[in-house]
Amino acid sequence: MSNGVQTHWCEQTVAYDGSQLRAHWLLDRFGLVGNALVAFRGPCNVLGAEVADLEDLDGPGIAADDMVHFVWESFTTTDLLLAVHRQRLFAAQVREVIQRLAPSSDVSRTGDDLYVGDGKLSISIATVSPVSALIHFAVNAQPGGAPVAIATLQQLGIEPGCFARAVLERVATEQTSMESARAKVRAKGEWR
Amino acid sequence: MSNGVQTHWCEQTVAYDGSQLRAHWLLDRFGLVGNALVAFRGPCNVLGAEVADLEDLDGPGIAADDMVHFVWESFTTTDLLLAVHRQRLFAAQVREVIQRLAPSSDVSRTGDDLYVGDGKLSISIATVSPVSALIHFAVNAQPGGAPVAIATLQQLGIEPGCFARAVLERVATEQTSMESARAKVRAKGEWR
Amino acid sequence: MSNGVQTHWCEQTVAYDGSQLRAHWLLDRFGLVGNALVAFRGPCNVLGAEVADLEDLDGPGIAADDMVHFVWESFTTTDLLLAVHRQRLFAAQVREVIQRLAPSSDVSRTGDDLYVGDGKLSISIATVSPVSALIHFAVNAQPGGAPVAIATLQQLGIEPGCFARAVLERVATEQTSMESARAKVRAKGEWR
Amino acid sequence: MSNGVQTHWCEQTVAYDGSQLRAHWLLDRFGLVGNALVAFRGPCNVLGAEVADLEDLDGPGIAADDMVHFVWESFTTTDLLLAVHRQRLFAAQVREVIQRLAPSSDVSRTGDDLYVGDGKLSISIATVSPVSALIHFAVNAQPGGAPVAIATLQQLGIEPGCFARAVLERVATEQTSMESARAKVRAKGEWR
Amino acid sequence: MSNGVQTHWCEQTVAYDGSQLRAHWLLDRFGLVGNALVAFRGPCNVLGAEVADLEDLDGPGIAADDMVHFVWESFTTTDLLLAVHRQRLFAAQVREVIQRLAPSSDVSRTGDDLYVGDGKLSISIATVSPVSALIHFAVNAQPGGAPVAIATLQQLGIEPGCFARAVLERVATEQTSMESARAKVRAKGEWR
Amino acid sequence: MSNGVQTHWCEQTVAYDGSQLRAHWLLDRFGLVGNALVAFRGPCNVLGAEVADLEDLDGPGIAADDMVHFVWESFTTTDLLLAVHRQRLFAAQVREVIQRLAPSSDVSRTGDDLYVGDGKLSISIATVSPVSALIHFAVNAQPGGAPVAIATLQQLGIEPGCFARAVLERVATEQTSMESARAKVRAKGEWR
Repeated sequence: MSNGVQTHWCEQTVAYDGSQLRAHWLLDRFGLVGNALVAFRGPCNVLGAEVADLEDLDGPGIAADDMVHFVWESFTTTDLLLAVHRQRLFAAQVREVIQRLAPSSDVSRTGDDLYVGDGKLSISIATVSPVSALIHFAVNAQPGGAPVAIATLQQLGIEPGCFARAVLERVATEQTSMESARAKVRAKGEWR
Repeated sequence: MSNGVQTHWCEQTVAYDGSQLRAHWLLDRFGLVGNALVAFRGPCNVLGAEVADLEDLDGPGIAADDMVHFVWESFTTTDLLLAVHRQRLFAAQVREVIQRLAPSSDVSRTGDDLYVGDGKLSISIATVSPVSALIHFAVNAQPGGAPVAIATLQQLGIEPGCFARAVLERVATEQTSMESARAKVRAKGEWR
Repeated sequence: MSNGVQTHWCEQTVAYDGSQLRAHWLLDRFGLVGNALVAFRGPCNVLGAEVADLEDLDGPGIAADDMVHFVWESFTTTDLLLAVHRQRLFAAQVREVIQRLAPSSDVSRTGDDLYVGDGKLSISIATVSPVSALIHFAVNAQPGGAPVAIATLQQLGIEPGCFARAVLERVATEQTSMESARAKVRAKGEWR
Repeated sequence: MSNGVQTHWCEQTVAYDGSQLRAHWLLDRFGLVGNALVAFRGPCNVLGAEVADLEDLDGPGIAADDMVHFVWESFTTTDLLLAVHRQRLFAAQVREVIQRLAPSSDVSRTGDDLYVGDGKLSISIATVSPVSALIHFAVNAQPGGAPVAIATLQQLGIEPGCFARAVLERVATEQTSMESARAKVRAKGEWR
Repeated sequence: MSNGVQTHWCEQTVAYDGSQLRAHWLLDRFGLVGNALVAFRGPCNVLGAEVADLEDLDGPGIAADDMVHFVWESFTTTDLLLAVHRQRLFAAQVREVIQRLAPSSDVSRTGDDLYVGDGKLSISIATVSPVSALIHFAVNAQPGGAPVAIATLQQLGIEPGCFARAVLERVATEQTSMESARAKVRAKGEWR
Repeated sequence: MSNGVQTHWCEQTVAYDGSQLRAHWLLDRFGLVGNALVAFRGPCNVLGAEVADLEDLDGPGIAADDMVHFVWESFTTTDLLLAVHRQRLFAAQVREVIQRLAPSSDVSRTGDDLYVGDGKLSISIATVSPVSALIHFAVNAQPGGAPVAIATLQQLGIEPGCFARAVLERVATEQTSMESARAKVRAKGEWR
């Protein structure tokens, strides 16, 4: 079965300002039709008008000089609760990848945030458009530009491109396995 | 994008009695995981306990000696209204295939039924299980065994295996194109 | 049962520019409350801001001097996948009506597009608003004004008003029969 | 618009034992296709195997000698939460009808139960089948046969047939008005 | 079980102009996260751009000098049909509270409107945002400022704050009981 | 906000045979109404008729002498895809708890399975009933009785009761935070 999610590692730098988290941006920018997850590297500076999490509006700002970004658009459902589940699982998957790439690191997950000690390693948001569910997840690559204490892939000794490709493969594999799982389980009361 | 529906033409004869229209039969029988559409040839004799359309329960029975059967299971949604749309579109697609294979034929569609003149060419049902939507569509290959006046592929000069493969390809192609269409359309009010 | 979709043939010419494909336009313009399908005749010139299909944004433009337009709004569900199924079935139904009105014509369907030979006979889009599903389908009545090679009802010898009414009746009848079908089918495992 | 729910007052007595609350019973018994609400008079004795509310399983039993029963099947959605809302609104509507027919009565509603003082006037359950939502609501017509203290239409001076017809009309009217309301409201952000 | 809806009686006056009926207003204004129902007192003057019911756009205007307002946001589902059911039940609940507080009053309900004789006691709208369902319901507290003949809590001898708190408690209690009901009912065919 | 999922650690031993994974078992057994997650310790021996994963039907059997079991029923939605996401996240959460309780352990997650080296530490299934979503997740406490090579909490030096309570608290906390997250995020295009 060849379902799941298409993935793409974009070699070019993209400056993320929040406007990328909209319906069909992956189609416009990369020509990808359907469920897709794209990773790229670049600075982050989310404009107020693009801030999706209302808690962040009055916060210190969302910015960093060098991050590995993931943008995921899924057309399967526009259910925000499912999108939040997908986002949390994504955070857990990223943590698992980091543990594999840097076995001695101590990365913890609190909801959709990853930390190394007190340093915030990642930012994330899940939202919906009228036709799709959207997730942004970004991990600090190198220090600089952030309004809070951060941790970085650099300090963990992880190369950003290698990391991005490992996450893409990890997530795509599990996505396919989840769709298989859904298609193989009997409902209660189903007879054989 | 490689979504859509998996298709399979089963060379072996399968006697259809209605019990095949259940969740995971395509998985059990053919090892297909996920959305799948399988075609096979065989007699049809639907047992009362397996009759899904309540109108058919008091009818003349559902039987024929030689049909081309299609069984479609989709895990994408269990919405019966969507399944009925899929079934009607399937009937229209089968008619389009027949018109291409036998251009001089005069096949008409009334809901989910195809006719050649007054002869009933097909039977069909759409239903849901707790985990999937299910469609059975069958077209008479040769005369015999039916409780009503029927038309057959034989009288249209269409070879059953060729027909089955043409339908499978037609439906799979359109299924993929429908998923693409869903992923490319802007919602009203979406900005670029 | 008196469900289904209300239909209306508007005798007045309406210039279609895409802004008609929005929630409640049929209510505002025709006073129709609920699921409704309206047909009218008029020129077509879809403004860039109203183009719903992202592929069309960079295309030759969507325009023609004289078309028969259908606008369908359904409040039953805002599921875009169902809307796309409805749109494909609509295209198949229009083709069936044309085959009946002009038996010697050779109209083919590719997805939501109808062709006569290489001439494009129709345009269509399906989308969703926050409260409804919306479909526009339009068929060229007479030549002129189109940026691509088109086919027309005129060349098929079909009178536009007669055609529009035949489509409205065809679609409304099948819509009612689909709702009946949904209400008559047993789920797998349902006992009598 | 002619949507909503079909209603029928069955003059014949029907003994209600819970087996009537299943998919397609209204179709089998009354030939009604689609959303329908039927009222009839008869004794009530719900068998343990048919008890839907788990709290009732260990209760005093569900029985009475003479009730006005309402059975409602809706195919629009199988969402149980919506069915529970429909059931609560139904209870409020029945109370409103009683207040109109017997202005000096003092009927109170607690959830899906109606009371006259301490006497239980009604019983009710809402559930789902794989293809529909189902509601049973019954009001005591005359005393006798109940395992708890009951109130009756008789003591309120209300004629059962008149009551049943008034409820059917009240509910059908509001159902239509609800569907109209849904089709007339703008979503937030929708422009005119 | 502690689900249901959070309630809050805001002692401060708030002028309602329709802009309050948007996603996350209760979060912004009151810091309430999740399903919440807030009541406050204040004048009402709904701006044309904020009118949600299309019928009201050409009406006499929506205004009054002193009302008790209820704003309810629910994130459980964005289904507009469920929101309309919730709104109708809310109107029935408000009527029940009024009947309890002013037993000799004669309040009738027509859809989502309450009347005392010919005087309109309330206004209401239900709509959806992309992430939630929203209801506004307001009851006239004192006369003045309305473009139509109105009834008021004052003429019924009901104190507005007491009324508001009684409604909040009534609705929250029933909301919890509905969620319990959903969790206790067996589906048809479920075995014990 | 007090939503989320109720949790309970059952001190008594319960022998798990698969029949516990049905709608309302938590209500019947523990009196819990609504979304609930219960943990208990006991042997595991899933009968063939209760096996939900079709792949397991032809496998070595599902059994072990001493496991910590978790049974989760959620009435929020019956969407199997959401249930599968919840299950995968649950597996990730259990892994995180184990890493905290036994920092030097090396637990890996493959889909819904946890491993310590080649030893299978856990089993799991997610399914749906007509009214709810259901998850079983169980972790080996002590060796013995399993048809495959297993790992156990004992070998990790983790006390089962302590583990169970830590998982319950971890999951409940995140569940609440997910519902908060859903209620705080702006949809794309939502204005402030």
